Amino acid sequence: MSKGTILSGMRPTGKLHMGHMSVLDNWVKLQDEYHCYFMVADWHALSTEYQDPEGIREKAREMVIDWLTVGINSDKSVIFVQSDVKEHAELHLLFSMITPLSWLERVPTYKDQIAQLGEQGKDINTYGFLGYPLLQAADILVYKATAVPVGEDQLPHLELTREVARRFNYLFNKNVFPEPQPILGKVSFLPGIDGRKMSKSYGNVINISAAPDEIMTQVRGMITDPARIHKTDPGHPEVCTVHTYHTIYSNEDLNEIQENCRAGRIGCVACKKVLAGKLDRFLLPMREKRAELEQNPRYIDELLAEGAQKARQRASAVMEEVRTAMKMA
Amino acid sequence: MSKGTILSGMRPTGKLHMGHMSVLDNWVKLQDEYHCYFMVADWHALSTEYQDPEGIREKAREMVIDWLTVGINSDKSVIFVQSDVKEHAELHLLFSMITPLSWLERVPTYKDQIAQLGEQGKDINTYGFLGYPLLQAADILVYKATAVPVGEDQLPHLELTREVARRFNYLFNKNVFPEPQPILGKVSFLPGIDGRKMSKSYGNVINISAAPDEIMTQVRGMITDPARIHKTDPGHPEVCTVHTYHTIYSNEDLNEIQENCRAGRIGCVACKKVLAGKLDRFLLPMREKRAELEQNPRYIDELLAEGAQKARQRASAVMEEVRTAMKMA
Repeated sequence: MSKGTILSGMRPTGKLHMGHMSVLDNWVKLQDEYHCYFMVADWHALSTEYQDPEGIREKAREMVIDWLTVGINSDKSVIFVQSDVKEHAELHLLFSMITPLSWLERVPTYKDQIAQLGEQGKDINTYGFLGYPLLQAADILVYKATAVPVGEDQLPHLELTREVARRFNYLFNKNVFPEPQPILGKVSFLPGIDGRKMSKSYGNVINISAAPDEIMTQVRGMITDPARIHKTDPGHPEVCTVHTYHTIYSNEDLNEIQENCRAGRIGCVACKKVLAGKLDRFLLPMREKRAELEQNPRYIDELLAEGAQKARQRASAVMEEVRTAMKMA
Repeated sequence: MSKGTILSGMRPTGKLHMGHMSVLDNWVKLQDEYHCYFMVADWHALSTEYQDPEGIREKAREMVIDWLTVGINSDKSVIFVQSDVKEHAELHLLFSMITPLSWLERVPTYKDQIAQLGEQGKDINTYGFLGYPLLQAADILVYKATAVPVGEDQLPHLELTREVARRFNYLFNKNVFPEPQPILGKVSFLPGIDGRKMSKSYGNVINISAAPDEIMTQVRGMITDPARIHKTDPGHPEVCTVHTYHTIYSNEDLNEIQENCRAGRIGCVACKKVLAGKLDRFLLPMREKRAELEQNPRYIDELLAEGAQKARQRASAVMEEVRTAMKMA
């Protein structure tokens, strides 16, 4: 049986943080089982960030470097920037002609997000924001992707993609598009240093590219058990952010760390030092890889140019089929 | 002073009829005063005709032949098919991100047209139909057109284009787009043979490419003065469709024709024969040119390929500027 095809993407936010590792680990694994297209979703970024699209290209480069450092491999997968492949815009436009307005108005997250971002002072009540699930449909279907890694919250979007694929095939009486299946990866939730969701806007992140002193600073700022005043007080690992990290990054020593904490044998400062050391060892190879990649500033541009070419090759072949089915060719 | 730039287009409806002459005559004149881009709006056709996009390409060819026969000149103007220039789709997508939904919902024709086409059994309540004035904005601005020939009814669409241009320039703090001005051509209304608006769907048209016997058949079917029973009865030219045509196509003999009709000296049959002769002479050179063009079936394809190349050249230069202004490049 031939391999399936996957499309997945991220908005260009610049350097990634450890909260992204779970998704990225998933991508790395998928590379061997599927033809993977990994996309920098720069047009999508505009749908909420149009008022400040400062240096989207530079943010894309920074993010792609992080992809490469964690093991996304351009020999296995196609890595590209969405806006380099105009076929996404063309297919989005064609889909727009056959997609009832009500399908988009009913996407569950639509009204929530307008309200939520409105509170942050962002006015995203635009035509493009209403249509962005349709742009996602085009992103996916222009490669005839058969599967898409998604979180639970994105299932309605993928369902829209499947509906659009069905409608197209039905209207033009030709089986052009597959109905892509969701791959629900196990999402391991890594909190930020303050225990909230890790997010650049909260300033609570540890970047994948963090230098040893940055790691130390951030770990030092982590929220621990508030009931523990003196280091000989017994600790409660289950309420401690440092401990959450230990469960992921300190596998072999975990029991010992927990026991020492509960018995008041190790203070939080020492416990944090242990964690910082673990994180440092974990991130070291990525940091080294990044240093190596940064030596050749043209490398990422070249890699993205090559990726765009491969993506266009596939996308333009699919668009041929689309135009023929629609009798526009 | 350098010449201005014009963008104008028509949906690919196949062969054109004499009701289109007024717009086409206007185009022919504009060719000498402006850099003209004449576009076959095949994506726009989808916004209302997606359920039956039978042979859009063939209809485009037929229409372009008519353009050439009336004097649209590919040495002077750029003649191309919209979907051959992907930059229209890209700019449409970028504009969608900065255009408030309410601007589109408030376009005066929007709700009328949905209702009107709904009565014809066409469901056009799609995302693309809502956005088509924005696609027009992209069509116009991707060439930085400074002027657009429009009818009164299209002024709100052009106003939207101007608003989008202003908003882009304001948001990205760069004077990328001009605000195109309307050119309100004098529209001479030519009725169909039944006195209603000339329209293919009414079956009341005389095609620009009509052969002599087709012209005769259609003129014979024209509605004349219903009060005139016998050919010696005095006629009332002001209520006669044949007479409306005479006022346009029989300049030098017009007085004589009117007098003879009013005096009951010429019957409707004879009067129609005169008109058919006039129309035949008027359409003869176009028919000959069409016959010549049809000798080389590849000619139109080549002409459109060349037009697309010229259009892309201009459009891609403008898109460079756009992406730079948006800091996406």
